[in-house]
Amino acid sequence: MARVIVSTAINVTYELTLLCQIKGSLQGVGEILVESLFNSVDPYMRAYTRQLPTGVTMIGEGCGRVIESKSSDFPVGTVIMGRYGWCTHTVLDTKSKDPMNVIRKAPADYPKDLPQSLLLGAVGMPGMTALLGLTKLCEPKEGETVFVNGAAGAVGSIVGQVAKIKGCRAVGSAGSDAKVAWLKELGFDAAFNYKTVSSLDAALKEGAPNGIDCYFDNVGADFSSTVLNHMNLFGRMAICGSISTYNDKEPAKGPYPFMTILSKQMTVTGFIVTRWLNEWPKGMTQMVQWIKAGKIKYREHVTEGFENMPKAFIGMLVGENTGKAVVKL
Amino acid sequence: MARVIVSTAINVTYELTLLCQIKGSLQGVGEILVESLFNSVDPYMRAYTRQLPTGVTMIGEGCGRVIESKSSDFPVGTVIMGRYGWCTHTVLDTKSKDPMNVIRKAPADYPKDLPQSLLLGAVGMPGMTALLGLTKLCEPKEGETVFVNGAAGAVGSIVGQVAKIKGCRAVGSAGSDAKVAWLKELGFDAAFNYKTVSSLDAALKEGAPNGIDCYFDNVGADFSSTVLNHMNLFGRMAICGSISTYNDKEPAKGPYPFMTILSKQMTVTGFIVTRWLNEWPKGMTQMVQWIKAGKIKYREHVTEGFENMPKAFIGMLVGENTGKAVVKL
Repeated sequence: MARVIVSTAINVTYELTLLCQIKGSLQGVGEILVESLFNSVDPYMRAYTRQLPTGVTMIGEGCGRVIESKSSDFPVGTVIMGRYGWCTHTVLDTKSKDPMNVIRKAPADYPKDLPQSLLLGAVGMPGMTALLGLTKLCEPKEGETVFVNGAAGAVGSIVGQVAKIKGCRAVGSAGSDAKVAWLKELGFDAAFNYKTVSSLDAALKEGAPNGIDCYFDNVGADFSSTVLNHMNLFGRMAICGSISTYNDKEPAKGPYPFMTILSKQMTVTGFIVTRWLNEWPKGMTQMVQWIKAGKIKYREHVTEGFENMPKAFIGMLVGENTGKAVVKL
Repeated sequence: MARVIVSTAINVTYELTLLCQIKGSLQGVGEILVESLFNSVDPYMRAYTRQLPTGVTMIGEGCGRVIESKSSDFPVGTVIMGRYGWCTHTVLDTKSKDPMNVIRKAPADYPKDLPQSLLLGAVGMPGMTALLGLTKLCEPKEGETVFVNGAAGAVGSIVGQVAKIKGCRAVGSAGSDAKVAWLKELGFDAAFNYKTVSSLDAALKEGAPNGIDCYFDNVGADFSSTVLNHMNLFGRMAICGSISTYNDKEPAKGPYPFMTILSKQMTVTGFIVTRWLNEWPKGMTQMVQWIKAGKIKYREHVTEGFENMPKAFIGMLVGENTGKAVVKL
């Protein structure tokens, strides 16, 4: 067990507890000892860590290999995905009924030529967030315009590509010209660097000349307030994240959106992808198919070494990654 | 044609045009000449009048009697409901395909002992707004808590009673003690005068100790911002109106609700009841049944005389009415 004090580049100091469980004898039937292969760093963790007491294992998804087993369903060598937090080794109870801590095997047909780290990205939680959030809440229809911010991230990059598969115009924003160039490679119809455009309004007007029907939001606050002015009648907004506000000490303020939501008869839904846990297997199979067919492309930003997890986490929060940020153990 | 300059009690000056069409010979097949029996005054008109050019007939629902007819479907004597604006007489085209200007007959089984003015209230647009808005967007489930503001108004009073029919706890706010007393007569489980409570937070905590699952909003802005803090996980908010903001010159500001909507996985939908026009007939029949069965009670605030429409309108906006405000011609 090692406790690390991390002073982030975003001027917030907090503690992370890195728990390394030692290989040992398993206690109960159904238990497995997992050696983590990849640990995930995702924006939502920043929101959650604000409430996490010091001394508790940092939360997060990982994918790992079973190295000891008292479960016939999960023999030694099985690759699993789980929400087991930041650790190198962990004992998991495969009989647990907690829906938030489901232990999944990699899909039986998972291609050998795809990296296992995708189980934390396009084929894992961020991929399901993009696929299920967009299709279930925004219900994009052919010919409609989908806008996503944080578009070069693990979730946003999938949102735009699924929008293209659904026959929509995909528009995205990101924080660097290199990211914008990648979005265009991915097939986004329009993409812009929100840090350098003359105004967000002008960029949205140019990128979405017919208005926005579906808004997949990863950013929140002022950014969303501006996007709302570009929404069409009966527009749908799915709130996935609010990364611009995770470090705010006071809630950000601005014009209330209620009258705009009313006059445009919009639907705005906040979601966490665990609400559709039973639909993940089907979604994962879909994502593998699209990746194999070349319809979904991905990038990964891989940091090596468990000891670099805080660095990888902070780097992701300040936008160093293009595509999914993962740590290889 | 008479033009009237109205200086409202709410410090806004605007012009209303009162159009009186004279009885005359009808031009085309399908046309009917209608003598208005009751004209409606509703909060939403205030929002719309801000964009209405001077000289245009003021918008609004009415119910009237056919006094000349070139339509075999609408013979002389038929009672109709329509969105024909503020006028004593009007020529309507029953063949019009404009969904916003549907001319409806009173339901065939409309009881003779119910006032025709209910066609502008519980059995008309406000009743459909309450019934369809609540059931379709909030989907209240037995045992849940429904909160509605403007609860003693034409819409709010029905929302609370439908919530009770659905087996929910109904909580309402209104702007006078007399209105609050009426809400308790209607069967609201809790009701409070928002003008005199020590704080809205405290009143909501007391009225909805288990939190709010469904929020039917007629008020908007700061009021909604406070209510959001009392919403439960997976709460539903239906935005029907925003009466607190209709006179604002600048949009009201406050904390953005996006992060709250996300963390509570809420769904927020703005709506105008015309989106469900084809469901009105069934809804109207339902309301008549509930009224006859004593499950839905109503009050009307009747102003006499077409010339008093502006006065009735402003009175309704400042809260003089309990129940539905109508003008009897």
